[in-house]
Amino acid sequence: MTPQFWLWLGFAGMAAGAAAILVLAKRRTQAEEADGIIHGIVPIIAACSYFAMATGQGSLVLPAGPDAAEAARQFYFARYIDWTFTTPLLLVGLARTAMHSGLRRPAVVWGLIGSDLIMIVTAFAFGLSDVAAVKWTWFAISCGAFLAVFYGIFVQLREENASERADVRKAFLRNAVFLSGVWCGYPIVLLLGQDGLGFLSPTVALAVIALLDLTAKVVYGIMATLETTRAVDRDLKEGPVAAPPLRRAA
Amino acid sequence: MTPQFWLWLGFAGMAAGAAAILVLAKRRTQAEEADGIIHGIVPIIAACSYFAMATGQGSLVLPAGPDAAEAARQFYFARYIDWTFTTPLLLVGLARTAMHSGLRRPAVVWGLIGSDLIMIVTAFAFGLSDVAAVKWTWFAISCGAFLAVFYGIFVQLREENASERADVRKAFLRNAVFLSGVWCGYPIVLLLGQDGLGFLSPTVALAVIALLDLTAKVVYGIMATLETTRAVDRDLKEGPVAAPPLRRAA
Amino acid sequence: MTPQFWLWLGFAGMAAGAAAILVLAKRRTQAEEADGIIHGIVPIIAACSYFAMATGQGSLVLPAGPDAAEAARQFYFARYIDWTFTTPLLLVGLARTAMHSGLRRPAVVWGLIGSDLIMIVTAFAFGLSDVAAVKWTWFAISCGAFLAVFYGIFVQLREENASERADVRKAFLRNAVFLSGVWCGYPIVLLLGQDGLGFLSPTVALAVIALLDLTAKVVYGIMATLETTRAVDRDLKEGPVAAPPLRRAA
Repeated sequence: MTPQFWLWLGFAGMAAGAAAILVLAKRRTQAEEADGIIHGIVPIIAACSYFAMATGQGSLVLPAGPDAAEAARQFYFARYIDWTFTTPLLLVGLARTAMHSGLRRPAVVWGLIGSDLIMIVTAFAFGLSDVAAVKWTWFAISCGAFLAVFYGIFVQLREENASERADVRKAFLRNAVFLSGVWCGYPIVLLLGQDGLGFLSPTVALAVIALLDLTAKVVYGIMATLETTRAVDRDLKEGPVAAPPLRRAA
Repeated sequence: MTPQFWLWLGFAGMAAGAAAILVLAKRRTQAEEADGIIHGIVPIIAACSYFAMATGQGSLVLPAGPDAAEAARQFYFARYIDWTFTTPLLLVGLARTAMHSGLRRPAVVWGLIGSDLIMIVTAFAFGLSDVAAVKWTWFAISCGAFLAVFYGIFVQLREENASERADVRKAFLRNAVFLSGVWCGYPIVLLLGQDGLGFLSPTVALAVIALLDLTAKVVYGIMATLETTRAVDRDLKEGPVAAPPLRRAA
Repeated sequence: MTPQFWLWLGFAGMAAGAAAILVLAKRRTQAEEADGIIHGIVPIIAACSYFAMATGQGSLVLPAGPDAAEAARQFYFARYIDWTFTTPLLLVGLARTAMHSGLRRPAVVWGLIGSDLIMIVTAFAFGLSDVAAVKWTWFAISCGAFLAVFYGIFVQLREENASERADVRKAFLRNAVFLSGVWCGYPIVLLLGQDGLGFLSPTVALAVIALLDLTAKVVYGIMATLETTRAVDRDLKEGPVAAPPLRRAA
């Protein structure tokens, strides 16, 4: 299958996924409405990015990486614009799951978003670079920021999550493991693909990233939406939402 | 009149409008201060964009659209940078009018801003494109996002507005109809202008957009500022601002 | 010393400064944690920017300014990307100091951030321009926005700060004078450097900006972190944090 096939598949999958999430998401409470908007908008942005890449507008030709055999490579810059908006949205969604829609500890969420943006922007610099020492330094910085994201999810958000209801804790853990597991695939593909060591053919790299993207945005989005529905079912059964504590978000 | 005339008119009008709004806006309450800052900063950003376009820094020459007669066109990219910041600010101002400055339902406001940004970025992609099928797909996506903005204003914000005082409801309806009416002019000019079908001469398109911009940012800004003043007059007459409900923004 | 020396010094200083701030910042309260994240992330972003400039990725060659003797100059665009994120973060940190971590008057903070972004973007346009009249108009607009930032700090934040505890007032005044004093150095270097009148050699301008950056981000960051620690020491000694007033952020 050609590279174009995978890009159009990404486009179609994201568009269908956005429609599915927007239909599935209920709007009984503000929390549910907000989760639906977050998870619905993510694949819409990704669909635009895939459309741009499939039509040739979202990539440019750069000299191949220092470690690649070919002389030139197609650099898909549109991904990074997509990821700049979609990965923070996914993290906000996850933080809302952790805190049962409360965002009680906003500094942690902002720290997560900041680390995530540094990860994306330095990965973009990695992709643009063609001097080996510079390229691999950007890669190392990006991986460091990825570790900070992990810390935010599995230490800080988990701390905050510990005082929640058992079903909320279980949903957070499942979402956190799923999302961060899928995200681990990205640095590996960037490392092995045309922007890095060049071990993967362009088509294989596109295919793997398209499948990772669809898993991280559509499969995950549907899963998170269904879990929000279950949590709100239980909130509503347990009676009116309690007033939040008066402690103000610092 | 030359294209430059309209760009300098836009610059002068935006600068004068910003000064007028900042002088008119009172600061008796936090709500009034916030509205003054929002509506004052919008024409300042637009004035910078018009200055860049008038001096030739804010545009570049691109091959004409597939449906235009000429071989080349001036593409004014600075507008899109302006719109990326000013249209979300105008929507935040409108949401504040709807909810009587409370922003009680933040997910709706974020959904509006997200749809709006997708509308602007895909309109930018439309302007950059020169293959007909690609160009008109971007146009269709942008119009779809515009419909989502309409839905946010006339369904979601209106729902939230329904429980407000009669004068607040009236002010919201007037502002919403005025702003969205003016905004409807933009896709029409983009469709007919040099970036689209090429029916309008460049000068006519610049003139129409300059007048739309001045209406949507200066005339609307003054109107919204005076309405905020009236609403705050009444708030202050009715005694101290009541404590907001303890329900936390989700 | 060569230009590269100063850029690598900037990189090393920012990296070391980020580590120092993240180690120094305590996490006893949400306010303290948030301040640590804000002041820690600022030099991380700056370190990435210095790395890009030192390796040659963060600059491009432009025709020299109209008032310079040379024919060409190195334009360091990466600074402006850095400043777009770091200066708003520093202002948020200062606003939090002013309001004892409460952000009770968010419109003022958003107005500060808006003015700051206009200042940075128009300074970027100044740097890119090579026609004298255009260049100096951008410079004037940027200075106007800088005055608005001053107004926000010394009139609006100070008003809000006036009702705080004596030690909080003292800390705010010290931080505000320090930060705005250092920031005054930037327009002077831009005016005299290669992007402006060309009185300073490129190496001298790079050295001065590197020292200003390290002062504004690392020295200031450590100072602000220590002051937050002192304020929180006292908060904790005075007993549990009082519930905030019920007035809602407008």
